[in-house]
Amino acid sequence: MSDEHNPPRLNRRQILGTTAMAAVAGATGVGGALTLSGAAATPALAQKVGDQPYEVKPGELDEYYVFFSSGQTGEVRIVGLPSMRELMRVPVFNRCSATGWGQTNESRKILTEGLLPESVEFLEDKGGIYLNGDLHHPHPSFTEGSYDGRYLFANDKANTRVARIRLDVMKCDKIIQLPNQHTVHGLRVQKYPKTGYVFANGEDRAPIPNDGKILDDTKQYHAIFTAIDGETMKIAWQVMVDGNLDNVDADYQGKYCFATCYNSEEGVNLEQMMSKEQDWVVVFDLKRIEEAVAKGDYKEMNGVPVVDGRHGSRFTRYIPVSNSPHGINTAPDGIHVVANGKLSPTVTVFDVRKFDDLFADKIKPRDTVVAEPELGLGPLHTAYDGKGNAYTTLFLDSQICKWNIEDAKRAFKGEKVDPIRQKLDVQYQPGHNHTSMGQTKDADGKWLISLNKFSKDRYLNVGPLKPENDQLIDISGDQMVLVHDNPTFAEPHDATIVHASKINPISIWKRDDPFFADAVKQAKADGIDLLVDSEVIRDGNKVRVYMTSAAPAFGLESFTVKEGDEVTVYVTNIDEIEDLTHGFALVNYGINMEIGPQATSSVTFKASKPGVYWYYCSWFCHAMHMEMKGRMLVEPKTA
Amino acid sequence: MSDEHNPPRLNRRQILGTTAMAAVAGATGVGGALTLSGAAATPALAQKVGDQPYEVKPGELDEYYVFFSSGQTGEVRIVGLPSMRELMRVPVFNRCSATGWGQTNESRKILTEGLLPESVEFLEDKGGIYLNGDLHHPHPSFTEGSYDGRYLFANDKANTRVARIRLDVMKCDKIIQLPNQHTVHGLRVQKYPKTGYVFANGEDRAPIPNDGKILDDTKQYHAIFTAIDGETMKIAWQVMVDGNLDNVDADYQGKYCFATCYNSEEGVNLEQMMSKEQDWVVVFDLKRIEEAVAKGDYKEMNGVPVVDGRHGSRFTRYIPVSNSPHGINTAPDGIHVVANGKLSPTVTVFDVRKFDDLFADKIKPRDTVVAEPELGLGPLHTAYDGKGNAYTTLFLDSQICKWNIEDAKRAFKGEKVDPIRQKLDVQYQPGHNHTSMGQTKDADGKWLISLNKFSKDRYLNVGPLKPENDQLIDISGDQMVLVHDNPTFAEPHDATIVHASKINPISIWKRDDPFFADAVKQAKADGIDLLVDSEVIRDGNKVRVYMTSAAPAFGLESFTVKEGDEVTVYVTNIDEIEDLTHGFALVNYGINMEIGPQATSSVTFKASKPGVYWYYCSWFCHAMHMEMKGRMLVEPKTA
Repeated sequence: MSDEHNPPRLNRRQILGTTAMAAVAGATGVGGALTLSGAAATPALAQKVGDQPYEVKPGELDEYYVFFSSGQTGEVRIVGLPSMRELMRVPVFNRCSATGWGQTNESRKILTEGLLPESVEFLEDKGGIYLNGDLHHPHPSFTEGSYDGRYLFANDKANTRVARIRLDVMKCDKIIQLPNQHTVHGLRVQKYPKTGYVFANGEDRAPIPNDGKILDDTKQYHAIFTAIDGETMKIAWQVMVDGNLDNVDADYQGKYCFATCYNSEEGVNLEQMMSKEQDWVVVFDLKRIEEAVAKGDYKEMNGVPVVDGRHGSRFTRYIPVSNSPHGINTAPDGIHVVANGKLSPTVTVFDVRKFDDLFADKIKPRDTVVAEPELGLGPLHTAYDGKGNAYTTLFLDSQICKWNIEDAKRAFKGEKVDPIRQKLDVQYQPGHNHTSMGQTKDADGKWLISLNKFSKDRYLNVGPLKPENDQLIDISGDQMVLVHDNPTFAEPHDATIVHASKINPISIWKRDDPFFADAVKQAKADGIDLLVDSEVIRDGNKVRVYMTSAAPAFGLESFTVKEGDEVTVYVTNIDEIEDLTHGFALVNYGINMEIGPQATSSVTFKASKPGVYWYYCSWFCHAMHMEMKGRMLVEPKTA
Repeated sequence: MSDEHNPPRLNRRQILGTTAMAAVAGATGVGGALTLSGAAATPALAQKVGDQPYEVKPGELDEYYVFFSSGQTGEVRIVGLPSMRELMRVPVFNRCSATGWGQTNESRKILTEGLLPESVEFLEDKGGIYLNGDLHHPHPSFTEGSYDGRYLFANDKANTRVARIRLDVMKCDKIIQLPNQHTVHGLRVQKYPKTGYVFANGEDRAPIPNDGKILDDTKQYHAIFTAIDGETMKIAWQVMVDGNLDNVDADYQGKYCFATCYNSEEGVNLEQMMSKEQDWVVVFDLKRIEEAVAKGDYKEMNGVPVVDGRHGSRFTRYIPVSNSPHGINTAPDGIHVVANGKLSPTVTVFDVRKFDDLFADKIKPRDTVVAEPELGLGPLHTAYDGKGNAYTTLFLDSQICKWNIEDAKRAFKGEKVDPIRQKLDVQYQPGHNHTSMGQTKDADGKWLISLNKFSKDRYLNVGPLKPENDQLIDISGDQMVLVHDNPTFAEPHDATIVHASKINPISIWKRDDPFFADAVKQAKADGIDLLVDSEVIRDGNKVRVYMTSAAPAFGLESFTVKEGDEVTVYVTNIDEIEDLTHGFALVNYGINMEIGPQATSSVTFKASKPGVYWYYCSWFCHAMHMEMKGRMLVEPKTA
């Protein structure tokens, strides 16, 4: 809170409204001729020029995508920066009433095929409840130290899962549940040469196998670290470690990754977990592990190779740090790694170049530490501007601390230097923070987002449940300046800021997309051309209803089934127009799904209620959208 | 698109960032002492002063709440205006992984107790899928023509339901499914003397009863209009009508409500529905219907009084308008009602004072029409500024048309007057639009929101599924000026803009709240004090686990159950601190729920998997939040 670090200063962010370009772009809408796509005028990215007021005019594009986790909401959010507007929700571990995620056959396959056998049984169990999700860390795939626009990976802390999102269509295409491991907290990806590995931290210790034979004998609990192959979404290998695993990051050399441990005590309650004065950072040697796995030097557990990385192992090194560290973050310089103290007011800076000697036992673990500045109360995570400065969230002080890495190293060597450049108040209690491109070698030092856990009085009162408060901070000048408060629904934990030039999604689905390949295959077997035919195929008590959708009509005005039939409805959107999504909602049957341009979606249900049930297009598509509907006629059993 | 109606003009909206007040408010966060609530500095509402640049500084409060529908997402969204930031999501007809809506016993009761019997069976059916929702029209309760801050009502088009949200806690407390009726589209509430009635339009015609005896004989289909008692959430009465029912609104006298019909043909496909040149607006006489119901002059259908309002009935009048009208909107002057033409370039203006004579058969239906201006292509909905001007969305032209009601009446009488004041391009294809307080007698003419169905090229490309585009327009001057583009997830249909002074939510739950009364009752029966005790009660194979939560610890470090037990976990948040919500997530059991300050939440599940399962707080609550966890030990059957 020291004022020398917090001089009052103003910054200006303007959003200028103008009807000028609207008049141009508006033309694409004239006559509601939806066959005109908006491609006519594609606005340039809004650009911040020096100290000029930042402008995002209506219709201008943001300069960055931000991929936000949503925590216990279970989805990924795509936000534009600097406007901080939510551009899209991508359902992953949640159910989505709009898209039918969790209800369509396409999404149910993705949600279930990677589950462990006991979870499948669990879901099939009559008492089973759908799995919620707690999505913490969304991280895009890398090639040679920067984002390559292929995939985004994220973890589910609640049900020990890892998901992959395709950035070409912004849909989740793979979800796997990890064996042996209990929960996934920290997740980061290999930065070099490419992703490559997705690293997933097992936070809690549990028995292996966790079948009830061992219950309260905590000495027989284990913690597991997992490396997943991001291309195949299969588990490459696991490492058994001492203590537990909180956050993780990787180097820019492709040699090491490292995780924090806040429970070296291996305790099962707060008092036990905090009893020691020190915990540690554990470093993994990727090459040694790969070699061991290659020559079979591992134990197979639940079909996965597990190497023993506990103390004394050649696969790991344990570097002591103060009790209960939290975030660990690699700097864009490719050299420095910062572990954040949480309970200690310090952060610990490692030099990754020293890890070779550490694993060669030429130096001691703490010899890899090159700085340990005291920043303030509750350091949790650190971001970088690519200019040698680091930005650390201070949870307890409710501040962002800007400090200089080289000055911290000089101070560590004994020089009288204060590495702290500025402290900025944030509202309130920040967790993760993120800089533009700051987790890559292309860190550009323009923007910082602080993900604050409490908003309290910062917004209109919306009742006992308040939004979080994600704040946008301009770091392009010497001083950090708070420019915008952004409320978010429970509870973003992490975010990645990616320059728009790195991401290139499509607008119209390709017909050979694997996302709906099963439907195409089934149609072929039934002699159906999905782009043309609308037909009902009966196959015993299974009925397959194929229909096209083209604004403003479905291919079938009605179809008839028998009470008790297992009905699968396949809808193919034959409109080839950007942003012309159709929906299929079946009244009083609890069914709705999204069908994007040139996509096929399907849903299977039991026709358990006789009578007339209208279906309608749930995605506004045309002036006659209200009239885009038909009827499912269900003949009663007794009829 | 005429330029005379669309002069190029600029408007400036600035969001000035400042650390000044942050320094003050920030103090409440110092040391992370969460016992300090944010109450210290409560910022005033941001105010727009004349033509001054509009400022919403970080930490300043918006001037209005906007209650957005979310369409097929099934939730209600609370947005701040003019910042257009989403402040909160209120789950209603959807599942919510964050709050546990659809999973907690408290929410499941609300989601199921008002369902029709066949739906309950349907959900219990092994093949049953949860009900999605398509939430279209959120409207707050009125007292004497303006909002009273008690409730918000909304409909589910997909499953024929109506929900009520308590505005003190911003949670849904009642959901009912309507018998006899098929889908609910239009929903509005009684404005005077109070709400009172919630009016719900049955859009589609279906057999009564809809049990499969009648299937394709469309002559035996019926359309139903429903009036719900907003206090009891029971159905007051229904009216059988000719044609169908699209949108609805009510007068300011408490005498009439009126609905548009786009399918007077009673057709079942597009061609049939569009075959006639005219459809109609149907007017309902509330007093006559109440009298009939009072003296038993009705037919009871599925336990509900239904009066016959078809042609020739004394309860209704049918006023012919051009083919396929859509929205119908009452002006703040309490006199004028506008039906929007959709397929006709005109809107039809009625004078509600003439309805007395219409029902007395002193005048003909069309004699109630006082204006019918031609505005442009695809008029869908009309909003008002309280200064005699109306703002109509033109779907096909992608414009908002501002026109003057009195001038339209003069033109209708034959005077050479152009009622059109301005046409403003919007991006693209607008549906509903809304003015600040514009649906009440307190319309203030400051802001207009246009809910556009397509965003196309207005945002960074997020793949085949694009956001909608809700645009903020400043109407405080002579000319409408577009000031902000706001992307939204599929698919807001309607919104209500309420001045902040009308809404007063609480921040801490009251222990006697009915929301968790069942849990309190069960605890009492078990001799448990929820604010104090953490205990496990076994009752046969039913196990009730009671625990408190106080940052950073649960009342139970672990609990033990047997495989196959039916377990109910009750968590009571005993923290009495604003914004200190806890969560309860049970790893690999698919369970998560929100517990607000001083609230109790419960969830019931089958302990079908033996082993050790950690539970943790899923809502960041404290510096030691990561350590707030415990273990469920499930003993195997065979043990």
